[in-house]
Amino acid sequence: MRNAVATPIDFYFEFASPYGYFASLRIEALAGRFGRVVTWRPIMLGAAFKRTGMQPTMSQPLRCDYFLRDIERFARLLEAPFRRPAQIPMNSLAASRAYYWTLQEEARLAVPLAKAVFQAHWGEGRNLSTPEEVIKVAAPLGLPADALFAAVQDPAVKQRLRDETEAAIERGVFGSPFIVVDGEPFWGADRLDQVERWLETGGW
Amino acid sequence: MRNAVATPIDFYFEFASPYGYFASLRIEALAGRFGRVVTWRPIMLGAAFKRTGMQPTMSQPLRCDYFLRDIERFARLLEAPFRRPAQIPMNSLAASRAYYWTLQEEARLAVPLAKAVFQAHWGEGRNLSTPEEVIKVAAPLGLPADALFAAVQDPAVKQRLRDETEAAIERGVFGSPFIVVDGEPFWGADRLDQVERWLETGGW
Repeated sequence: MRNAVATPIDFYFEFASPYGYFASLRIEALAGRFGRVVTWRPIMLGAAFKRTGMQPTMSQPLRCDYFLRDIERFARLLEAPFRRPAQIPMNSLAASRAYYWTLQEEARLAVPLAKAVFQAHWGEGRNLSTPEEVIKVAAPLGLPADALFAAVQDPAVKQRLRDETEAAIERGVFGSPFIVVDGEPFWGADRLDQVERWLETGGW
Repeated sequence: MRNAVATPIDFYFEFASPYGYFASLRIEALAGRFGRVVTWRPIMLGAAFKRTGMQPTMSQPLRCDYFLRDIERFARLLEAPFRRPAQIPMNSLAASRAYYWTLQEEARLAVPLAKAVFQAHWGEGRNLSTPEEVIKVAAPLGLPADALFAAVQDPAVKQRLRDETEAAIERGVFGSPFIVVDGEPFWGADRLDQVERWLETGGW
């Protein structure tokens, strides 16, 4: 073993990123095969784009056409539930804030909430840009609507998301998914094979 | 078989792209396993970037750091010769023009020239931004220095490269490597596994 106590794998993602969704479907099983746990870290990718100068893919000629084709193809390959949302990219502020509030208030429900958000948005094509829609997705988990509605407007929760995003950028995160294994960064849903090999070998 | 006569695989790349180099090391063996040939198509990626609004990776904060780490790591994984060039990106005009001139004048040497350019630049870290350096790389193949020097300044050869690049962009090419199999586009050296699966299955 490389680590006496295995450190968690950091899984950075943006809820509005389909590649984040695709990675989310596989990351835990992958980590589990190597006795690792995963720390889920939603961020606001737009803030990283401001640093790198990247534009959202949907606003780029050529790349947007490829993107729309690729995400449907990628979903079919993974046999993942997929329905193209009418709104790409959605605004993920409410969902991301809801995640960090849940992590703070009822930590065991945070990852289930993240999975439910991904499933609703990318699996079913729903637009979760409003607090109301996020609350609908959170309700079956037992998360209270009133408290959640207050949370996504709470200055402390807003600041938490800004802090998490800024810390990610400081660490070099600029895309989604972005996975860090023992300090080693991997960008992209098509790099999970390299993540797996890194976990297996401890690096090459 | 999906095709009675198997159509070639189109392999678009930019000589200044290390991911193009990585793909070049594997594409022919991959295609050969399915009885396919590969059409090598160097392009000037900067022209595509003008269309998409992308910036060269080395000029992007955060992305450049990841890029430099990733390309060394990718090379180690492939056990590919690699030496980081001092000049990234190099200017690939002379090399790309030399390719199309060779394709026209002595077609059997065109792919060997492309491989020699990739090997010199990414395998050995040499800067091939000038005609003189391209000529040095071409000489061992038996390509005549004087004719090659004239070719890279020939208006018809310059136009050929512009036409090839424009045709690629019209087809949706915006990155390197960019591989088209029976009309299906795949972007990135980390998508060769999907290319292989597409060849194997005829699509999914």
